[in-house]
Amino acid sequence: MALVEDVFSLSPKAVSSALASLWRPIQGGVSAPLGFQAAGITAGLKDSGKPDLALLLAPEGAVCAGMFTTSLVRAACVDLCVDHLQACGGKARAVLINSGQANACTGERGWLDSLRASQALAGRLELPVEQVLICSTGVIGVPIPMDTLLAGLDPLVEALSDEGGAEAAGAILTTDLVEKQFALEAELGGRSVRIGGMAKGSGMIHPDMATMLGYLSCDVGVEVDAWQAMLKRVVDCSFNAMTVDGDTSTNDSCLAFAAGELLEQEHLQALEAGLLVAAQQLAKAIARDGEGATCLLEVQVEGVVGDVEARRIARTVCGSSLVKTAVHGRDPNWGRIVAAAGCAGVPFDPAAVALWLGPHQLMEFGEPLPFDRLAASRYMQERVDGSYLCDDTVQIRLVVGDGSGDGMAWGCDLSDQYVRINADYTT
Amino acid sequence: MALVEDVFSLSPKAVSSALASLWRPIQGGVSAPLGFQAAGITAGLKDSGKPDLALLLAPEGAVCAGMFTTSLVRAACVDLCVDHLQACGGKARAVLINSGQANACTGERGWLDSLRASQALAGRLELPVEQVLICSTGVIGVPIPMDTLLAGLDPLVEALSDEGGAEAAGAILTTDLVEKQFALEAELGGRSVRIGGMAKGSGMIHPDMATMLGYLSCDVGVEVDAWQAMLKRVVDCSFNAMTVDGDTSTNDSCLAFAAGELLEQEHLQALEAGLLVAAQQLAKAIARDGEGATCLLEVQVEGVVGDVEARRIARTVCGSSLVKTAVHGRDPNWGRIVAAAGCAGVPFDPAAVALWLGPHQLMEFGEPLPFDRLAASRYMQERVDGSYLCDDTVQIRLVVGDGSGDGMAWGCDLSDQYVRINADYTT
Repeated sequence: MALVEDVFSLSPKAVSSALASLWRPIQGGVSAPLGFQAAGITAGLKDSGKPDLALLLAPEGAVCAGMFTTSLVRAACVDLCVDHLQACGGKARAVLINSGQANACTGERGWLDSLRASQALAGRLELPVEQVLICSTGVIGVPIPMDTLLAGLDPLVEALSDEGGAEAAGAILTTDLVEKQFALEAELGGRSVRIGGMAKGSGMIHPDMATMLGYLSCDVGVEVDAWQAMLKRVVDCSFNAMTVDGDTSTNDSCLAFAAGELLEQEHLQALEAGLLVAAQQLAKAIARDGEGATCLLEVQVEGVVGDVEARRIARTVCGSSLVKTAVHGRDPNWGRIVAAAGCAGVPFDPAAVALWLGPHQLMEFGEPLPFDRLAASRYMQERVDGSYLCDDTVQIRLVVGDGSGDGMAWGCDLSDQYVRINADYTT
Repeated sequence: MALVEDVFSLSPKAVSSALASLWRPIQGGVSAPLGFQAAGITAGLKDSGKPDLALLLAPEGAVCAGMFTTSLVRAACVDLCVDHLQACGGKARAVLINSGQANACTGERGWLDSLRASQALAGRLELPVEQVLICSTGVIGVPIPMDTLLAGLDPLVEALSDEGGAEAAGAILTTDLVEKQFALEAELGGRSVRIGGMAKGSGMIHPDMATMLGYLSCDVGVEVDAWQAMLKRVVDCSFNAMTVDGDTSTNDSCLAFAAGELLEQEHLQALEAGLLVAAQQLAKAIARDGEGATCLLEVQVEGVVGDVEARRIARTVCGSSLVKTAVHGRDPNWGRIVAAAGCAGVPFDPAAVALWLGPHQLMEFGEPLPFDRLAASRYMQERVDGSYLCDDTVQIRLVVGDGSGDGMAWGCDLSDQYVRINADYTT
């Protein structure tokens, strides 16, 4: 534990990076932490016959924090999550996730369906109804076939297992190409602590399947307000720092459960570092799985007045159609990057801008440098040819001054495939 | 003039619409108003050998108002326009426009080049240098070949003519497919008043040619502060209500010149109505010419708390990649439209939403209505098959409550062609 003790004399960012290194990836996902159970089954909600109903059950005493879509048009299940979390004071134990129908724009009936599903599940789990949450993802405006969902609850509960994380991760997918789960382990205060996670969404880009869902689990106890505050900070630097096409879903949700012996105050920072690693890994997996994407795009911005502002610039660059098409065309087009940065609404001195694409510096003092255009283009092509989520990341680094704020954002390239998928998709 | 007098008892929006009907389109463009001269020549700034240098000269006593890019990274010529307009108290007379090089990210040298060009032109026109403005559009980071530009000034000034509007409109283009000019005439207070305009930009979407430029001219005198305020209102409801891909250029500028006998106060509102018609026509022409676009997209939002908020929703819908690809796929995907509206950051009651696609109502009270999907899709296909800027507009109407605010925005569909153009474009 020497590392943890030592680093507190370092800068906050060095601390965070040193603390992150305490965590090592392990097999499994959301049910990897002690006491968590998960399940995923095929209830018949999807025409495709793929798994479509998932359940995550946290052990007794769990606290749950949630972050939800900021869209005004939000699904009934999001309203229910917010209500139930408030009613149980953040002591939720279970979340049911159905894929196939988003239960958005379904009016009064949508709300009643969400409530009925949570009531039915609460009965089977012998929990107060407000401790049961529900998330939905799928087609907007179509009600959930409730008979099918309700008939699936018994087999779903029966399937609960501490090895069920992968099944759950599979059952929450809609048009994703790959499952997204991740788990970490560290020794904190002499005991083993695990963090698990799963997510879905190939961007928030799907026509009527527009949802980003993220779930985190952890086998230590954390005071509920501290846990909620931690989740907010973590989500701001992970799921909220990721963009595929700028469209925010009606159903976006991230839920995090913590349950176990209370973690000592002095280890909270290390826990947060691990939570951030897990959430960023899931966010990157979502961006990489963006429709039509051929690589992950990572933008690092430094020298800004604050971290929030740095992330805003990074996300604006990540979200620029011109930057995304340039990356797709393997074109080291520095002009598009700096032009996008200038539109983020964050003040900086254009004459101070320095820019790197991977190892290639393209700008200094706000003006273009001579650089090896072919090599820079080859850098991008090599990333595209790299292996999935290992070395397929095109990195852009933008320094815009000498401020202490920095931040990162993730996205993907914009391909003609994206347009074809979204134009040809018929409701 | 009965119409003008009568309408003042109507609501502001009815007034504006009645006043707009006073204006009739006439042949010509920016040099149509009395006393305005324009020219466009091939100076050799573009490799393509296409026209690349334009000049607009307003008569003595002109006032000039300007609106410029909000991007932090803005071109030297924009800085110069702002400085000169301030120095001459809005009494600018001429604007030189070069296409081929944007003169952005060119540092100190870029500023000196802009200054030198305006000085050289001022000498030839016998004007104080601060009355001469300059706009540039083209590749970012590449200096203007100054010898070529300066050598072009004599033939450019010689070519000045009150019939030169079309040549000027041609010489400011970069990758636009079509010229964009427009002129209007009305009788105000017993005399004939003309408004002329030209613009360039096939969206703000071009890699290093990212610029939207708009020019308006008018042959009546207007007090300079009133003219600037009028231009701001007009641009907010035209050029600023248009989006192709959300990327804002380093060079975006709109300049409006007014010169002639002072217009009576009572006719200012009618003048503004005409200016708005002209600017909207040019903005629509830009959106329609968006790269890869197959139709114009017009979104009307009603029932919002204020007009500004209504325009924000309209522009968010216009800018949504999911809406744009749905239109390209001729898919009446109401879910994407209402989801985009919900993310505009403007409060409304989702349960009050009603939505129309052309004549087809798709939603009422926040829920989907049964509608003829094939007919709605056919409506979009017919627009795409319609004639250019006449009947090729896909119209979306969104009513989100009973507020008095409304607003419109324009955009275009997103095609795989857009991606190919921008991915294959090599700097």
